[in-house]
Amino acid sequence: MNFCLWWGSKLDQFGGVFEQVTILGAGLLGASLGEAAKLKNLAGKVHVWARRKEIREKLNAGASWCDRAFAQPAEAVKGADLIVACTPVEHIVELFADIRDSIRNDALVTDVGSVKQQICETGRASFLAKGVFIGSHPMAGSEKSGLENADPRLYEGRNCFVTPFPDENIDAEITKLRNFWESLGMRVTLTSPSDHDLIVAHISHLPHFLASALAYHLSKKPSSWDNLCGGGLKDTTRIAAGDPGMWTDIAKQNRGQILLALDEFEESLKHLREHLHAEEAHAIKEFLKTGQTYRRRLPSSYESD
Amino acid sequence: MNFCLWWGSKLDQFGGVFEQVTILGAGLLGASLGEAAKLKNLAGKVHVWARRKEIREKLNAGASWCDRAFAQPAEAVKGADLIVACTPVEHIVELFADIRDSIRNDALVTDVGSVKQQICETGRASFLAKGVFIGSHPMAGSEKSGLENADPRLYEGRNCFVTPFPDENIDAEITKLRNFWESLGMRVTLTSPSDHDLIVAHISHLPHFLASALAYHLSKKPSSWDNLCGGGLKDTTRIAAGDPGMWTDIAKQNRGQILLALDEFEESLKHLREHLHAEEAHAIKEFLKTGQTYRRRLPSSYESD
Repeated sequence: MNFCLWWGSKLDQFGGVFEQVTILGAGLLGASLGEAAKLKNLAGKVHVWARRKEIREKLNAGASWCDRAFAQPAEAVKGADLIVACTPVEHIVELFADIRDSIRNDALVTDVGSVKQQICETGRASFLAKGVFIGSHPMAGSEKSGLENADPRLYEGRNCFVTPFPDENIDAEITKLRNFWESLGMRVTLTSPSDHDLIVAHISHLPHFLASALAYHLSKKPSSWDNLCGGGLKDTTRIAAGDPGMWTDIAKQNRGQILLALDEFEESLKHLREHLHAEEAHAIKEFLKTGQTYRRRLPSSYESD
Repeated sequence: MNFCLWWGSKLDQFGGVFEQVTILGAGLLGASLGEAAKLKNLAGKVHVWARRKEIREKLNAGASWCDRAFAQPAEAVKGADLIVACTPVEHIVELFADIRDSIRNDALVTDVGSVKQQICETGRASFLAKGVFIGSHPMAGSEKSGLENADPRLYEGRNCFVTPFPDENIDAEITKLRNFWESLGMRVTLTSPSDHDLIVAHISHLPHFLASALAYHLSKKPSSWDNLCGGGLKDTTRIAAGDPGMWTDIAKQNRGQILLALDEFEESLKHLREHLHAEEAHAIKEFLKTGQTYRRRLPSSYESD
């Protein structure tokens, strides 16, 4: 097979690279995504909307991956066949109203928000006339943020949810979006928006709020203790260094599920407390063993840890 | 200055290398310690007591750092000027009875246990007639264990508590022990045994039991969620993979302080829950900010993270 035939078949398999990918928001996730898409030849052009003037100037002055940065979302999306909203969660739905009249008829619109039900409902309603919306949640966050920390490998080896509503008939678009994330090195899981929100409440939001509560608790202790902390504490609280604004928005959008997850966690913690109170060494050990077995079975190969 | 004079002054400064260091217990901590002490020329000879025959055979067959491995603690400690008990916490006090009659009059005895009050009380009582006991707690644990994971750099850059009783007049021995740990690259903090147990209940034991409770909670969820976990969850639960037996012993020996720390933590978590229930975005953000500020101020240079 000659190269062109081979490459053609790869394109078919991929479902097509995009002529123009528009990234809305040039923070850590947006900038890393634009850079990765360009490097991996998944986008002919990358256009960006950035709210802040200094970011636009920086991008237009010479970011190799960004063909043009715009001051208006509606301008940035013109001509794009893939649009990815990469702003903080609470601003994503506002963007839909800004861009809905300017997109191509065949545009695929997605986002990278960590909570999906509300975003996907608004997305579906916003793009009934033109375009197709499917939510995404690439689990590529970090306690770092901003364009200056952008890294085209941020998405590699991480999980990504793609969250169509079960009653939608958009298989071709789902495949296209799935392939896009997979081409960035992600492992894609399809779930409904509500299942997504239930799952991440437990595996992502709960750990975050526990890490924050532990850090909050320790902040009340003498600062002389700071220098005594070991690697265990530092690992356990690492994500507490994440952006409070972003996590407040997540808390707002997934409040119900997070509260249920906290209830269930406290039930587990109560068992441990009772075993401690009663000095039941065997029960404590069994509890710890259950946790150990769980932790040990978590896959390590698909993570950067 | 010629070399001998220079070296002599270094010895004075150090407080003397030890003629013979005896390590009781050749697990991760003991084997790593013996290897490090030999590599850094802090011990003329390293003798080891190992409970299991196959470990003794392995050591006697050719561990470069171990001069001889013994089947009886009382034999292993003969001639040692430094003895370090490196068994699991619950077995440390038993060792004191085994060795008290066999040690040198001037032997310095210490241990590496993570809980200090009970060990130090028994240690002081056990070595009234011969030797001096001072507790140590090098914070060099890992979720790994065993001789096969030994690493002479395990102690480097970590914190170490040295925990004499405040009313003891053993300044020379404290300095000797402090210098020993510092020569291994550790940062030493002196506290009383009870202050130690209070501090580690919050900065070490509480994080451990929270990580375990989170892992326990998630073990009840569908195993299909395992593959979806991100780096945040993995960091937050990493220490839950630690040895359940060891942590059961720690729970037993520091039960009171751990329960108090859990009470206080739950009070903090309650604040967060109330803010979530009441949808008080500002209060949630302030809570998360307090945690973020704490986590960011933790020193990163003195850790392997």
